[in-house]
Amino acid sequence: MAFTMSVAGSFPRHPAQVNGLLQADAEIIRLPGEPEKYMVFKTDGIHEEIREGLYSDPHLIGWMTVTAPLSDLAAVGAAPMGLLLSLVLPVQQGPDWLEGFKAGIHGACSAYGIYVLGGDTNLGVACSTSATAIAQLESGKPLLRTGIKPGDYLYATARLGAGNAYAYGRLFNPSAAIAYKPFARLQESRFIRQHATACMDTSDGLFPALSVLSELNETGFELTVPLDDVLHPAILPVQQLSGLPAWMFMAGPHGEYELLFSIPALKQPEFLAASRREDWQPVLLGRATMERKLCFLSGSLSVACAPALVPNLFAEAGGNVRAYFSLLLQQQEQWSHP
Amino acid sequence: MAFTMSVAGSFPRHPAQVNGLLQADAEIIRLPGEPEKYMVFKTDGIHEEIREGLYSDPHLIGWMTVTAPLSDLAAVGAAPMGLLLSLVLPVQQGPDWLEGFKAGIHGACSAYGIYVLGGDTNLGVACSTSATAIAQLESGKPLLRTGIKPGDYLYATARLGAGNAYAYGRLFNPSAAIAYKPFARLQESRFIRQHATACMDTSDGLFPALSVLSELNETGFELTVPLDDVLHPAILPVQQLSGLPAWMFMAGPHGEYELLFSIPALKQPEFLAASRREDWQPVLLGRATMERKLCFLSGSLSVACAPALVPNLFAEAGGNVRAYFSLLLQQQEQWSHP
Repeated sequence: MAFTMSVAGSFPRHPAQVNGLLQADAEIIRLPGEPEKYMVFKTDGIHEEIREGLYSDPHLIGWMTVTAPLSDLAAVGAAPMGLLLSLVLPVQQGPDWLEGFKAGIHGACSAYGIYVLGGDTNLGVACSTSATAIAQLESGKPLLRTGIKPGDYLYATARLGAGNAYAYGRLFNPSAAIAYKPFARLQESRFIRQHATACMDTSDGLFPALSVLSELNETGFELTVPLDDVLHPAILPVQQLSGLPAWMFMAGPHGEYELLFSIPALKQPEFLAASRREDWQPVLLGRATMERKLCFLSGSLSVACAPALVPNLFAEAGGNVRAYFSLLLQQQEQWSHP
Repeated sequence: MAFTMSVAGSFPRHPAQVNGLLQADAEIIRLPGEPEKYMVFKTDGIHEEIREGLYSDPHLIGWMTVTAPLSDLAAVGAAPMGLLLSLVLPVQQGPDWLEGFKAGIHGACSAYGIYVLGGDTNLGVACSTSATAIAQLESGKPLLRTGIKPGDYLYATARLGAGNAYAYGRLFNPSAAIAYKPFARLQESRFIRQHATACMDTSDGLFPALSVLSELNETGFELTVPLDDVLHPAILPVQQLSGLPAWMFMAGPHGEYELLFSIPALKQPEFLAASRREDWQPVLLGRATMERKLCFLSGSLSVACAPALVPNLFAEAGGNVRAYFSLLLQQQEQWSHP
């Protein structure tokens, strides 16, 4: 869960805090006396994912503890230096579990070139982890979630759907199990920062991210590329096995930690030329629109709906994953036979 | 529990991290390219205190969530800018609980002049909170736990014992209940930093702090002032009611969040003169000694023991507060009738 209005909205903001509430994936503070230097912070936790049985492998829990807040730093374009851990580790687990968990933390820190700076460890019955990642932004402005204009192109760092596909295998159909090890897009972030007007990660999935971006920017989105072509190739077997429509892999709430970003139409040629020079192929999704609708193509469906429709189904299900899955199936039915 | 060797010791340190493992109350990072500027971070959580029934008032839980990491920043002499919260809030509690908790957070932030910068909120059956406090150190060196030499005077920011006295009232004797609302010593810290060679807070109580300082500095401590004279006046009724010896209020593990610091003998006159000018009276406890013993006076007892003896009893009790209390009573018996 995000640091929602119910808690975060109650406190006054730091006068040097650049981002408004929900306006960025991470917290951005202007350093006193240095107008072009920022510190960036993000606290993110792995709680529901463990409780719901989505993550049980200690290595994955360690990896995700590091990756989740780092993905948010990537979305604002900051270069992390390290993190502090806040851990409640399961008292009933043995040394193997702890070794696996530490290996996951260490593997992720090595992969991202960062360090564990400190932390706090407790024992408890239920495992839950959280990390605060710390970064500097030496020059240039941080990327916010705001700044999208109608007509801007919308891109992702890679094809999507792995988060929900993994969740489907874990929770609904063990024969459709796939590997899941997202990678915070810090490298791509440095490049994206030079071109994009706004950025947000897909830690909660594509549709929830688009709903937030739509709300903040007062735009809609037309996903001109059929969602079947946006599905990550690794999950095509899951789609075949499950028979689920492509859009359901984009519905969240379990995402793939890619970056979603906007490029103004006028700057698109320059962006694409630079991408080619970097030998990197971002994934075009569509464009921002004046009308606040989410339009997409999935299988034989062509849908235009409120941007919040799908995330609202999760809220309607009270956050219960099984109830939510039923509501998604009903929604597919309704769109197929209106 | 501190971020112990079992987890923290497994990871490589950041090359710009000033403090070694356990060498400071908070994590100190030298800013790149700026040799005299530091960022200081601390993650601390409130877990056992809630689970053991020590804290149940939501206002106190909120207050302590802020105060605990800030006290550690005070110990290194850093000026905090704000904190990020990592919360697992009790799903079974109503809006009154949440309002009380938020008021505790807000009250503490206002009192310390800092801000909530962000965070992550989850719901769970068991409440547990954690915060990462963030500070800058603009000039001068941070205070570490190391730097104490035999002969140095040992001081505290105020008289001690309130943490354990509160715990005694909560867990063992409701008729001895006292108020508990520690205040992170950020103001005093600015002054102490100009004079002290080392500093540590008493969040775990006096004896555990002395055990750590003794180990790190390879010294002992002679508490020349009788511990009965070091007891905070507010807890004298608890001592009378309970009949417990003064040292048991210093034994931890629940402390009072005062600062413990060392002043070299040669600098003591200057320190005392400056304290008088500030109209502030630090509490003299004793001196550091060559011999690695802890010597203290309590009631009619005169004890010389290993500095780790009392904290080791807590470990021996497996962290169980009732078992620990029995071991403390046995220890008193043994010292009284050797």
